Amino acid sequence: MATRERRIFSQLEGKADAIVLANATDPSLDLTFFYATGITSGLFEGCFAIVTPRRVEVLSSELEELSARQAGVRTTIFENRKERDRLLSRRLKGFRRIGVNAQELTVSNYKLIRKCAKGARLVDVSDRLAAARRVKDEEEITKIKRACDIASKTAVKIPELVEAGMSETMAAAEVNYQMMRYGASGPAFATNASYGPATAEPHYVPGTRKLRRGQLALFDFGATHRRYVSDVTRTFVSGRPGGRQRRLYEVVLEAQEAALDTIRDGVRGRRVDSAARRVIDSTEFKGKFIHSTGHGIGLSVHDPGIISSQRDMVLKENMVLTVEPGAYIKGFGGVRIEDDVLVTKNGCKVLTKAPKEFISI
Amino acid sequence: MATRERRIFSQLEGKADAIVLANATDPSLDLTFFYATGITSGLFEGCFAIVTPRRVEVLSSELEELSARQAGVRTTIFENRKERDRLLSRRLKGFRRIGVNAQELTVSNYKLIRKCAKGARLVDVSDRLAAARRVKDEEEITKIKRACDIASKTAVKIPELVEAGMSETMAAAEVNYQMMRYGASGPAFATNASYGPATAEPHYVPGTRKLRRGQLALFDFGATHRRYVSDVTRTFVSGRPGGRQRRLYEVVLEAQEAALDTIRDGVRGRRVDSAARRVIDSTEFKGKFIHSTGHGIGLSVHDPGIISSQRDMVLKENMVLTVEPGAYIKGFGGVRIEDDVLVTKNGCKVLTKAPKEFISI
Repeated sequence: MATRERRIFSQLEGKADAIVLANATDPSLDLTFFYATGITSGLFEGCFAIVTPRRVEVLSSELEELSARQAGVRTTIFENRKERDRLLSRRLKGFRRIGVNAQELTVSNYKLIRKCAKGARLVDVSDRLAAARRVKDEEEITKIKRACDIASKTAVKIPELVEAGMSETMAAAEVNYQMMRYGASGPAFATNASYGPATAEPHYVPGTRKLRRGQLALFDFGATHRRYVSDVTRTFVSGRPGGRQRRLYEVVLEAQEAALDTIRDGVRGRRVDSAARRVIDSTEFKGKFIHSTGHGIGLSVHDPGIISSQRDMVLKENMVLTVEPGAYIKGFGGVRIEDDVLVTKNGCKVLTKAPKEFISI
Repeated sequence: MATRERRIFSQLEGKADAIVLANATDPSLDLTFFYATGITSGLFEGCFAIVTPRRVEVLSSELEELSARQAGVRTTIFENRKERDRLLSRRLKGFRRIGVNAQELTVSNYKLIRKCAKGARLVDVSDRLAAARRVKDEEEITKIKRACDIASKTAVKIPELVEAGMSETMAAAEVNYQMMRYGASGPAFATNASYGPATAEPHYVPGTRKLRRGQLALFDFGATHRRYVSDVTRTFVSGRPGGRQRRLYEVVLEAQEAALDTIRDGVRGRRVDSAARRVIDSTEFKGKFIHSTGHGIGLSVHDPGIISSQRDMVLKENMVLTVEPGAYIKGFGGVRIEDDVLVTKNGCKVLTKAPKEFISI
């Protein structure tokens, strides 16, 4: 992990001598805690990590000792909160500027750190930590690739798993089950399976609706592998597609390919977004692409990094991002095609290799 | 939801005129946001809820509009962050003391609220919000019961689903799949399936280990239903149990029954914990029960509330808690038996009805 400490501090520009990362109770966990420590299992509720340019130490409860040891990170076990707070105070002694991750730290834990770090100034370094996490290292890329493989293989299986008459929740169950058969530790987020008009709702939640012939069927899902995730969407049709469905699919696919073509180290996210948007907006589906083109993935399915018209970000080598244009027509349905890509010097490598023809199920 | 606003403010003792709840990026979501609004789907990243004694309003991005509308909560949609911050400032005008949930609020969102709430004092009311959430209302109990039913039915199925030779990860996949077949929207947490010596690690993560005849097999899992969860553990044995396995099982079961017998409105959690601990500590397994006896469940699998020797809490009618003693012997294995119970005036109602004999699979 020594390279990860260096990577973090190389982003800090001298803003802090040490960083304290803290988890509250699930789900209020700081993913940067797991980034800095390399810990791949466990919740580490109420646990702290102290990061300096030369070492990382975890203050852990007994319950998580095994996970900490397996990750090979220097760990001190506390028996109760009082002992933990005493340990933290002792470890923070002597630092003058202590970095905190305001975007993922709870106010309660901030107060606790302030109490334990007497005399030190607390500095918000969350934007610097996000910058470190945006560009993935080799170990991270290996894990993400595996999560992408699992999701891709599952996407290929969907036409076998889902058929007319099956409910959305059962289809989501089949997708999750298949991902775990292929080695996922679980789904990366609540799998979205939607049919017909519901495909026009990007954040739909699966229900009892049954797939009818002629309907669009959209699946948005991802796998978790050693804490790292993938995020894929494929849209199918039950039976023979209608003309408008086919046209919608072709336009979205063309938009995705246009976006993929622009991606390389140094390009602005805004340009990638507008490449996709321009394709959709030049057709009868103008204005129907109602979200951003993509976002970072890594420890979270919404990792730092965004491809959007509203916020600017320059893409860099070894960022991993989703590319997911869609078009949504209320009452009719929507199509979204989403892949995960690794940004390279001269282009990008698509990590999710499931086919992108318009497939009938 | 009007009763929920009243319930929250009845706990506040006049500490605040209004409460602001805020979500950051997943997983940094404030579950009290979902408690106060009654919203059962969606992430609501970057969204806010403003709660007063008489009404709840959600400031939501367009992406979550459907989920907000389905919950029937008053909602205002913003198009971008600038508009959201402007809306928030306008809504907070005139309040003098604004409550925040420091235990689930990020430091960044705290700063944003402070900026938008000019002239008001921000007051940490997180312990009061936790107190409200600890005691469940009828609607919550109905949802938890359904999540418990799903987990119980799944526990009953385990002997059919798992057999010698199956890996821990595949067994976890089978459990998750079965829960979704029974109507779960997903697992409540990463399902734990462990075999043999691994059963002695309460926070083990399933691996490639295959079940061998004669081994203990422990399953800790729960279902999510409309955001509410269950949390169950059953320990089985592959084939015929050995004498020590049987003895360990009997002692833990006796400990659990002793704890269950003490539960009723008004009893101290410490007394429930010691009822279970005394049974285990009076045997050759003394000192092998290395965690607390239980915790609250609800929107989270670690909801407010604890049954522990270290922190004191008086049990109240309509709390829902786990009761889960265990005993763990390094190198040999462990047994844990966990049920979810509803505290009643004169006792408790066990919501997870799967049998508790020592079953061979």
